[in-house]
Amino acid sequence: MYSPEYIGFFAAILTTAAFLPQAFKIWKSKNADGLSLTMYATMGLGILSWLIYGIMIESPSVIAANSLSFSITVFISIFIIRYRK
Amino acid sequence: MYSPEYIGFFAAILTTAAFLPQAFKIWKSKNADGLSLTMYATMGLGILSWLIYGIMIESPSVIAANSLSFSITVFISIFIIRYRK
Repeated sequence: MYSPEYIGFFAAILTTAAFLPQAFKIWKSKNADGLSLTMYATMGLGILSWLIYGIMIESPSVIAANSLSFSITVFISIFIIRYRK
Repeated sequence: MYSPEYIGFFAAILTTAAFLPQAFKIWKSKNADGLSLTMYATMGLGILSWLIYGIMIESPSVIAANSLSFSITVFISIFIIRYRK
């Protein structure tokens, strides 16, 4: 593993972890009023594209980050649809 | 520009654009109740790390995406602090 991957995995942990409080908040409050489904749907497609990019450039951190983030984004999107008024 | 960069820039447009509806929604409603500051602060630091990673691996799409996303994340964070109850 070459040096930029350390920064990459640090970034991966943060951007993946960033989705967790939001997922937890919406799950606990059963309220998704302030959240934009458009955002999470677009984000999900974007993250999927980054995953393909990561595979193409063979970057372990980009692949790891975007695999996890994609799962969480799908989870949040489902919650938004489920709890919307 | 080699081939993966096309996918990279497509991903960049989507993940950057994904932040815009949320920024617009919070700006229009002056309401940030459903949004997690923890998420945006962590995301901001993560995006900044991806930007450093992008510079290290010399990826144009990673650099472009994370420069823009970082600005928008800072903007949303400021709105959350300003409009929180």
